[in-house]
Parts: sequence; C-alpha cells; structure tokens
Amino acid sequence: MFEMKIDDARYWKNCVDAIVSLVDEGTFNIAKEGITLKAMDPSGISMVSFSIPNKAFSKYEVEKPAQIGLNLDNLSKILSTARQNEQLLMKDAGNKLHIEFISTDSKNRRRYKLPIIDVRKDAEKEPNIGFESKVEVKSDALREILKDANLLSTYISFKTDKESFMIAAKGDAGELEEEHNGNTEAIKKLEITKPSSATFNLEYLERIIGAAPAESSVHLSLKTEEPLKIDYKVGDAVLAYFLAPYMSE
Amino acid sequence: MFEMKIDDARYWKNCVDAIVSLVDEGTFNIAKEGITLKAMDPSGISMVSFSIPNKAFSKYEVEKPAQIGLNLDNLSKILSTARQNEQLLMKDAGNKLHIEFISTDSKNRRRYKLPIIDVRKDAEKEPNIGFESKVEVKSDALREILKDANLLSTYISFKTDKESFMIAAKGDAGELEEEHNGNTEAIKKLEITKPSSATFNLEYLERIIGAAPAESSVHLSLKTEEPLKIDYKVGDAVLAYFLAPYMSE
Amino acid sequence: MFEMKIDDARYWKNCVDAIVSLVDEGTFNIAKEGITLKAMDPSGISMVSFSIPNKAFSKYEVEKPAQIGLNLDNLSKILSTARQNEQLLMKDAGNKLHIEFISTDSKNRRRYKLPIIDVRKDAEKEPNIGFESKVEVKSDALREILKDANLLSTYISFKTDKESFMIAAKGDAGELEEEHNGNTEAIKKLEITKPSSATFNLEYLERIIGAAPAESSVHLSLKTEEPLKIDYKVGDAVLAYFLAPYMSE
Repeated sequence: MFEMKIDDARYWKNCVDAIVSLVDEGTFNIAKEGITLKAMDPSGISMVSFSIPNKAFSKYEVEKPAQIGLNLDNLSKILSTARQNEQLLMKDAGNKLHIEFISTDSKNRRRYKLPIIDVRKDAEKEPNIGFESKVEVKSDALREILKDANLLSTYISFKTDKESFMIAAKGDAGELEEEHNGNTEAIKKLEITKPSSATFNLEYLERIIGAAPAESSVHLSLKTEEPLKIDYKVGDAVLAYFLAPYMSE
Repeated sequence: MFEMKIDDARYWKNCVDAIVSLVDEGTFNIAKEGITLKAMDPSGISMVSFSIPNKAFSKYEVEKPAQIGLNLDNLSKILSTARQNEQLLMKDAGNKLHIEFISTDSKNRRRYKLPIIDVRKDAEKEPNIGFESKVEVKSDALREILKDANLLSTYISFKTDKESFMIAAKGDAGELEEEHNGNTEAIKKLEITKPSSATFNLEYLERIIGAAPAESSVHLSLKTEEPLKIDYKVGDAVLAYFLAPYMSE
Repeated sequence: MFEMKIDDARYWKNCVDAIVSLVDEGTFNIAKEGITLKAMDPSGISMVSFSIPNKAFSKYEVEKPAQIGLNLDNLSKILSTARQNEQLLMKDAGNKLHIEFISTDSKNRRRYKLPIIDVRKDAEKEPNIGFESKVEVKSDALREILKDANLLSTYISFKTDKESFMIAAKGDAGELEEEHNGNTEAIKKLEITKPSSATFNLEYLERIIGAAPAESSVHLSLKTEEPLKIDYKVGDAVLAYFLAPYMSE
C-alpha cells in the first residue's frame, strides 16, 4: 500500500516524459527512500535510469516496497491532462494505479485508473565505464547542435581534445564541424583525462535530450568507442541515460 | 429577392462554422423575421438547428421568403477570407448567391459568387424530449472534459445525480471519472428533475462544441438513454444540436 | 579563389530562399561586381534571375570569376541553422564550398562543407517582352490575393484596365472577382499603357512571392497572353522571375 502526493502535477508529467522518450513501458520500484525505474529501450541500444527521492513529494507513505509495472505511454497521456494549479495524488488499489488530479482552485476531482501490468524485461544494471572526458553543456545549446547535425546525417560524432569539445556530422549533402572551446556560453565545464571520440545515433540523442528542462545543464561522459552517459536533473529527480556507440567501418 | 449586410464579416463566418462542423450542405430559410437552417448530419446520428434574427444584420431586406441551398464547405472557405474591418453583403442573383466583402478602411471590394444548389435531404423537425436534467457548463471547461475523455475512449458518459454532474470514459488504456458539484467554476447551473445518464460519441460532441465561443455558456439537456440536446449562442444566433445516444451492450 | 563575408547570416538565407522556392540546384556566377544566378525551374514554365552587388558583403574578394554549382536545397538547409548575431563566411576550397558561421557573441565557429556540383541546365537569357502594364503591389496584400484565389482555383487571372487592377479566379466551388483601384492601400502604383490580361498558375506565383520580405513592394509587369515578370528586392539583392501564362480554351 502506498500513497503519494505532488504539489505540481505537471512536474510529475515532466519526469515521466523523460522516461517515455525512450521506453513505452517500465516498472517503478517504490521504496521508502523514493522511486526508481531502470529500463532498456526496445532496440537495446540505450537505457534509462530514473530516480526521485521521497522529499520531492508533499506526501509520501509507503508501507512496504512495491513494484508497479505501467504502460508509460498511457501514463504520459493521462498526465498530459494536468492543468495549472493541480496537485497529483497516486495510490495503489488492487491491480490498478489510482491517479487523481486535485484542483487547488475548486473542488473538482479528476480520477483515472491505470492497469498495473507485467513488464517483460526490466531492472538492468548500469554499465560500469571508466569515462575519459566529461562535458557539461547547456541543454538548449546541445539541442541546437543536434539539430545542426541532423540536417546532414543520422549520426553525430563527439570528440574531446585537450581543452575543446568538437562535434562532426557528414552526409551526402555536406559536412559539419563545430568546435567549442572551454568556458564558452554553451559549454559550462570540460574535464578531459584523455582525448576521446565516439559516434552516436542522432534520433536517440534527440529523444534523450528532449525532456531536459530549458536553461539547465546536461552532463556528457565519454570514452572512446564506449557507451555515452547523458545525465541531467528534472527538479529533484535524476535522469541518467546510456547510449551505445555507433560502430562504423 | 433579398439583400442583407453584416457589420463584421467574421461574425457570419463564426455562425456558418457552427453549422459546417456537422453538415457540409444545407438550406437557409430566409424569412422576414430572420434566417433558419435545420439539417441532419450525413450519418443521421445528429442534427443542427440554427436561427438568427433579422436584428443581427445592419441591413435586412427580404421581399419574399426564399430557400437557398448551399455547399456549406465552400461557403465556409469563402468566409474564411474575411479580414478585420470588413463588412459582408449577401444577395441573390439568379442561381447564385453573391457575397461581397467591403473594407471599411479602403475602397476595395471582393466579390464571390456561390452556386445555389438543391440540397438532397432537409428540414427535419426537432425531436420532442422531456428532459430530466439540465446542465449549464462553460464552453472551455466542456472542451477540456471532452479532451480528457478522448485520451481513453471514443465515447463519453454523462451522468447527473442530485447535485452533481459526472462524466466517465473507459478504454484499454484506463478509466476516467470526473465529478463536478454544482456551482463550481466549470458548472454554472444544474437543474436535476431526475437523475439521468447516457453515453455519446466523442467526435460528434467535439465537432458540436468546437464552434462555441470561448468563455460562453453551453446548455446540456439530458434524459436517460435519449438524445442529448446541446445549445449555445453565437452573438444573436442560436445553435441547437441533438445527438443520439450510444447504445452499448 | 574567392572569399566573402556577410554581417547577418540570415540575410543570405533570405536571398537563397527566394531562389530555392523555384529551383533546387543552380550555378552562382561570382564576378568582381557581384554574384548572379539564372535558372529555369524543372518544369520549364518559370525562371529566376538573381543578382547581388559586392557592396552587400562586408568582405568581398574575388581573384578571378568563378562558377559554383550547388544543390540549393542543401545550401538552404545549412543556412537555416543561422542564428541571431552570426556572420557568414563563404570561400572555395577545392571541390567544396566552405560555409562558416561566426558568432559575434562567442568564439564558437560552425563550419560546413558543401560539394560543388555540375548543374545540368543553366544560364538562360531573360525573355524580352514589351510589357503593357506595370503594377506595384504590397507583398502582403499580394499574398492575401493569392490565398483568396487559391480557395477556388489553381489559376488566377490578372487584368488591368485604365486605372484599375483586377484579379479573378473560378472553380466548381464559386467565382471570385476583386477590383483594386489605383492608390489604394494594396496598390502603390499603376502604369497602364494598354489594358492587358493573362492567367497564371497559382502554385508558382505563391512560391515566387513567398520569399518577398513583409511590407515590401512587388512589381508585376504584364502583357496580354505573355509571360508575367515579377520582381522585388531582398535588401541589396534583386530577384526577377518570369512565369509563362496559362493558355486555357
């Protein structure tokens, strides 16, 4: 039995959107300390690891740990009805999750019931990689970079070298090279232990970055030809993603 | 022979849009007191009854009553060219309807001729139903309610009971229940003679409500398992719709 | 060898958009005085003649005249990445065109390389027509006129007569006639040597007019049943288009 309340229903929507960008179903692990979810995307080339502490909720009562498998697409649809000044209440009730929007302005209540499902594949461990380079970049600047690259290719290469972060993309229509030196407007921090380079699927990167709040920071952790780690915060929640590199030639 | 003028061409566009949302052709009955139109939608599950008094026009001259059948889709397209500060002049000329936009700013005139057609089926009588419940709801709130339900189903159930108005929708993705007690922000008035409930096609409801002006009132009249009456005003014009209930199981 | 710089990268984008609306590849003739491009659209019913003087560039160095064939669609895509406060640098490098966006705010540089291609068909001469009527019309008003006509037909007729400019369009849904007398808000100048009339393809006209800057003037030069000349300026650049008339009946 659990019951939790969030003061801004739209905040929970933002959290779920950051998960549903990669996976359409998943299992929330509800513990006393907070909620976590780990899931691979269906293609298996990326994973998401989500965690939110109990302090993000205005009410958080968990009698005993629970695992709640949900169709996240449907959850996201329901959360998209959240309006301004609505609180969100979630509790379990048999084989359904009760979701209730409570307007702080009026006495109306909107109640949804969402079936709890068995999620086929779940609970992956995060890969353990000794990253060589870490780049902290503004979310909006990173979105622009991905958009630039997307004009020419479906892949993007990230490279770090001494004190610069470079991206490259190449296609029939032309080639793009972009160089960011440390401490420019877009790049907030560069920690390069060893120059690294790897190439990634642009569509996955765009989906992963899509839910990062505007004007926030995104951390990229790189190791040559190894999976990329992307992480950012949505309020108190932490979103970490791993994306396998594209092996060309 | 008739000739009529409206000071804001876009007002007439709003009236026609409220009709064309359900039917793509219809016959305007032009009488000395005003203009009316009654039509069934092609599927036969809904009808619209439109009436506008002569006082809504700045000029209204009708020598003898006339019946003008029109392709309302084409009329709506032409009216969509209405710009700010344009008056509208309509008159008959043989087998065509003349529509003229007159700019109050300049001396330009834009003249359209629209063929007058024979409308196949027409002139329905409004059903006579002894309604048990009447709900006055804000147009924008009703649109939100329909949108919420649309996430889960193609049908919506309306229920009234003592002093509350409830809606419900159910689909594979989950269930929705929403309860509005009288005199909340969304519900402006509730008159319940007898608790009633019926289920309706959401797409038709959305089309019917779509043309209701923002921040206006929509009246819903309900009787268990009987057609729903929806009516609202667009300026001086009155739009009344009847929608057959969905009979499940 | 050439190298040129434009202070507002988005200005060059606007120029290229006015060409790419008709043709998807073309050859820029780069001379000491400036750059020109002439091209037929693939269907052969229209042509564009573009010219921009060297004074439009903040840096303009041309060692010897060059001809640079480009896929204009790809060029336009790359230019669409131009952001506020970015300068544009273009230079040749072997069989590629280097395009570099230089942010005036930061030290970031975004470099694209675009292949130089052989353009199949090119370098047309402009037709020599003794026009009978010239109409100067506001770009936004002309766009509205085309939109009005587009509701009824895929063709539009232009007519001039003494001191008025008329347009007409006709289709199954109805007829449109619009009359503009000289010196109205939309028409800035009328020079009628001889009344003229001709009919043109609306889609081509919309594409041609689409890139005309808002609140600017467009010149239409007409001769009965002869190609229409449309010309307007984008800053210092001149765009002239010729569009063959539609011969009905």
